[in-house]
Amino acid sequence: MTAFPKQLLTNPSGFPDLGPAEAIALARMIDVIRKHFELSGYSPIETPLVERTEVLAAKAGGEIAAQIYGLRLLHPAKGATSDEKDLALRFDHTVPLARFVAAHYAELLFPFRRSVIGPVVRGERPQEGRYRQFIQADIDAIGDGSLTTLHDAEMVSVIAGIFNELAIGAFTVRIGNRKVLQGLLRWAGLTNDALVADALKIIDRMEKIGRDSVVAALGENGMAETKARELVEVLLLQRSTSDALAFLGAQKIDELFEEGVRELAEVVAGVRALGVPEERFTVDLSIARGLDYYTGTVYETRLDAHGDLGSIASGGRYEDLASAFTSRKLPGVGISIGVTRLLLRLLKAGLFPAATTTVARVLIASTAENRTEALRAAAALRGAAIACEVYLGSKPLGNQLQYAEKRGFMLTISPKDVSSFTIHTFATGQKIEIAAPDLLQTIQKLLG
Amino acid sequence: MTAFPKQLLTNPSGFPDLGPAEAIALARMIDVIRKHFELSGYSPIETPLVERTEVLAAKAGGEIAAQIYGLRLLHPAKGATSDEKDLALRFDHTVPLARFVAAHYAELLFPFRRSVIGPVVRGERPQEGRYRQFIQADIDAIGDGSLTTLHDAEMVSVIAGIFNELAIGAFTVRIGNRKVLQGLLRWAGLTNDALVADALKIIDRMEKIGRDSVVAALGENGMAETKARELVEVLLLQRSTSDALAFLGAQKIDELFEEGVRELAEVVAGVRALGVPEERFTVDLSIARGLDYYTGTVYETRLDAHGDLGSIASGGRYEDLASAFTSRKLPGVGISIGVTRLLLRLLKAGLFPAATTTVARVLIASTAENRTEALRAAAALRGAAIACEVYLGSKPLGNQLQYAEKRGFMLTISPKDVSSFTIHTFATGQKIEIAAPDLLQTIQKLLG
Repeated sequence: MTAFPKQLLTNPSGFPDLGPAEAIALARMIDVIRKHFELSGYSPIETPLVERTEVLAAKAGGEIAAQIYGLRLLHPAKGATSDEKDLALRFDHTVPLARFVAAHYAELLFPFRRSVIGPVVRGERPQEGRYRQFIQADIDAIGDGSLTTLHDAEMVSVIAGIFNELAIGAFTVRIGNRKVLQGLLRWAGLTNDALVADALKIIDRMEKIGRDSVVAALGENGMAETKARELVEVLLLQRSTSDALAFLGAQKIDELFEEGVRELAEVVAGVRALGVPEERFTVDLSIARGLDYYTGTVYETRLDAHGDLGSIASGGRYEDLASAFTSRKLPGVGISIGVTRLLLRLLKAGLFPAATTTVARVLIASTAENRTEALRAAAALRGAAIACEVYLGSKPLGNQLQYAEKRGFMLTISPKDVSSFTIHTFATGQKIEIAAPDLLQTIQKLLG
Repeated sequence: MTAFPKQLLTNPSGFPDLGPAEAIALARMIDVIRKHFELSGYSPIETPLVERTEVLAAKAGGEIAAQIYGLRLLHPAKGATSDEKDLALRFDHTVPLARFVAAHYAELLFPFRRSVIGPVVRGERPQEGRYRQFIQADIDAIGDGSLTTLHDAEMVSVIAGIFNELAIGAFTVRIGNRKVLQGLLRWAGLTNDALVADALKIIDRMEKIGRDSVVAALGENGMAETKARELVEVLLLQRSTSDALAFLGAQKIDELFEEGVRELAEVVAGVRALGVPEERFTVDLSIARGLDYYTGTVYETRLDAHGDLGSIASGGRYEDLASAFTSRKLPGVGISIGVTRLLLRLLKAGLFPAATTTVARVLIASTAENRTEALRAAAALRGAAIACEVYLGSKPLGNQLQYAEKRGFMLTISPKDVSSFTIHTFATGQKIEIAAPDLLQTIQKLLG
C-alpha cells in the first residue's frame, strides 16, 4: 500500500505521454516519412542522445545554449570515476551530424546522404504546442568541398512525397534563396551586414506582424521608407513560378544576387524533372528563416488550408556543416520536420486520422472452454501476417465484444465448436458462421 | 578555421555512434521485432525519456539508483523558474509503464498489452558489450486485479516469432517458474526468505561458475551438502518438456510448489496451441533471474550455437506492476530484448547480415548533360516504390560506378541518350541497354 503523491504521476511539463491511439498515429506518420527518406536514398545513422558539452557548446547560439540539459549522476557510487560532468542532451540533429561527419570523415562516401528520426531535448519554457522533448525527422546531403544545387531540388521532392502520402490536405513548398533576398536588401540600400541580418529577422515575421509593420520596422532599421515599401511589394507579389524567375532574371543588382537567381532557376528545373506537380511548390522571395547559417536555398512548407500551423517542413542550404570541428569545407542542404508538434496539432485539429487504440484489427474472443481453438486460430492468422489479439481474460463473451468495440477492432472471431467459428463485423453488425478451414480466407476477404 | 580537439569528436564512452551499415541493420532488427509485437496485438505507447526523480527513485534498487542521470540546465536564462532539479533519464521501460498505467488507469482497457522500443540510459561503468545508452524492446500484458497464465504463454510465441524471422540460428526459449524453484529450495531445507533469495542468486550463476561451485555456495548458504547436490542434479537434468512436467507433477512438496507446476503446465499447453515448435522451447527449472520482483513464470532465450551471447530475450511474471504508485493490484507478464547489445554482438560475430551502407538498391548515374533524364527516371522508380539515389556530383561516370560498388548498390542505371538507358548489375557484371519505356519493368525484374 502506498501514498505516492498523485500529482507526481503525471508526465513532467513539456514531456508528453502518448497513449496507444496517439503512439499508433505517430508510428504511422514516422513510417511514411521514413519511407520517403529511403526512396530517395537517405540512409540512417544513429548518434547518441548524449553529446559532450564542448561539442554542443561549439555550435549552440545564445538562446539554445540556455536550453541545454547537462547530466549528472544523482547518487554516484563511491569511488566511481565520474565523467558525467561533460555530458549533455542533444538539442537538434545537426550538431551531432557535424560531429559525426568530422569524426568519421575518412570512412564516409560523399555526397553523404543521411536521415535521422528521433528525439531531441530543449529546456524551453513549456507552452501550448511547444515541447521540451520532441521528435525531429531530418535529412541532409553533405558534399566534400562542393555540392550541386540539384541536391536542393531533391529536398523539395522528398517533402512533396511525404505530405502527398500523409494526405493531410493540399500543401505548398515555398522555395526562397538567401542570396536573392540579400541582393534585394542591398538594392533597397542596406549594405551593412548587421543591418541585413536584422532585416532578415524582420522579414521573417511578415506573416505574424503584417506588411505595414514590416515596412515600419525596416524603416527603423535604416531603410528609406519608399524603398522599404517597394521591397515588401516585390516580396509579396503573387506570381507563377515561371513569372517569378523571369522577373528575377531581368533584375541586375549584383553578382551574388544573380548567382542566387541562377540557383533558384536550377532548383526549380530539378523539382520539375523530379515530377513534383507545379501546384505543390512556389518561389517565395520573402522566406528568410531565422537561422544565421543558411546561405542559399531556403524552404518552408504550408498546408494551404491551415497556414496557422506554420511551416510543417523547413530547411535550407548551408556553406559549411562542420566548421566548428574541422577545417574541411563540407557544404550541405537539409530539411527538418518537427514530428511531435505536427502530429499533436494535426490530431487536435482532426486533420490526421486518429487511430484506434490497437494495432490489431481482429479480436479472437474465447472462454476457458475453447481457449485451445482460439490460440490455434490466432497462430494461423499471425502466420498469414494478420495482427490479432486473443482475449485471455475471464469475462463472458458479451463483455469481450464490448471490449473489442471500445478498442476499435474491426472483427471479432469466436470459436463456436471444434470445427467452426462465428465472425462478428462491427461496421455492418453482420454475424456469420464459417467452417474452420475457411477461416483465414474469410478474414482476409473481410479485412479487404 | 578551428582547432577543436580531435579526441572530443569521438562519441562519449558507452554512447555508441552507429554508421549507416549498423543503423540500417538496427532498423531491420527493430522492424522484425515491431512486426511480431503488432501481430500479437501489443500496441505502442510513448512515454518521455525523462521522468521525475521521485518516480524513478520509487522503483530503483541500490545498484540502479547509482546509475540514474539527473538533468540540470547548464546555463539557465536569468529569472527562469527552474524545475529541472526534479528530472532524470529513464533507466528502463518498466518504471515509466508503471507510472503511465497508474496515471491513466481510468482510460485504459484491460488486459492492457503495450509495446515499447526505445532508448534507456544508465550511468554504468562502460565495458566491452555494455552500453550506457541502449535500445530496449519490451512488451507487457497487464491485468486489472488478475491476469490468466495464457498471457505468459503468448510471450513465448512472440519471442519465437521474432527470432525465427531474424534467422540468426536455432534458439531455445527456456521456461521456468519461481514458485517451482522456491518449492525445490524449501524441499532442500531452505525456509528462511533471505536464504531463499540468496540461493536464487547463486543458482542464477550456474552457467558462469559451474555446478560444483553452486553446490559449495548453497552449502555456505545453509543447505545440507547432499541436498544441495541432489537439488542441482534435479535442476540440470535434461528432459523433454513432457517428461519434465510429468516429473514435477509427481513431486508433492507443498501447495505453492504445486501451483507453480500447474502454471508451468498451462504455459506449455498454451505455447503448443500457439504453434511454437517443440524444439524451440524447454522447461528449465534452473532459471532464477536476478530480479526480485518475478513471482511465477520466468524466461530466458539462448542461441543454441552461441550460448556465450547470454540470454537474448528475458522476462517473467510479476505480481504487482505499480505497487509503488497505486493501491490497485496490477499483475503482469513481460519480456525484454536488449536490442543494441544483441545487434552489435551479432554483427561482430557475423551472425546478422551486415547491411550495405545504403537503403537504396539502385544508383542512377548521371552527368551534367543528362541530369534531367536521370531525375525523371528517379521519379519513375520512386513512384513504383523502388528506392534509388541519383548521383548529383560532378565526377565522371567511371568514378560514379566505383562509388556505387563501394556503397553496395545492386544496380547502376545511366541515361544513354534521351530514349535509352544502360543498366549495370554488380553481382553478374552484366551490362544491358534498354529503351526508356522498358526501364521500370526491367529494374523490377533485376531486383527480383
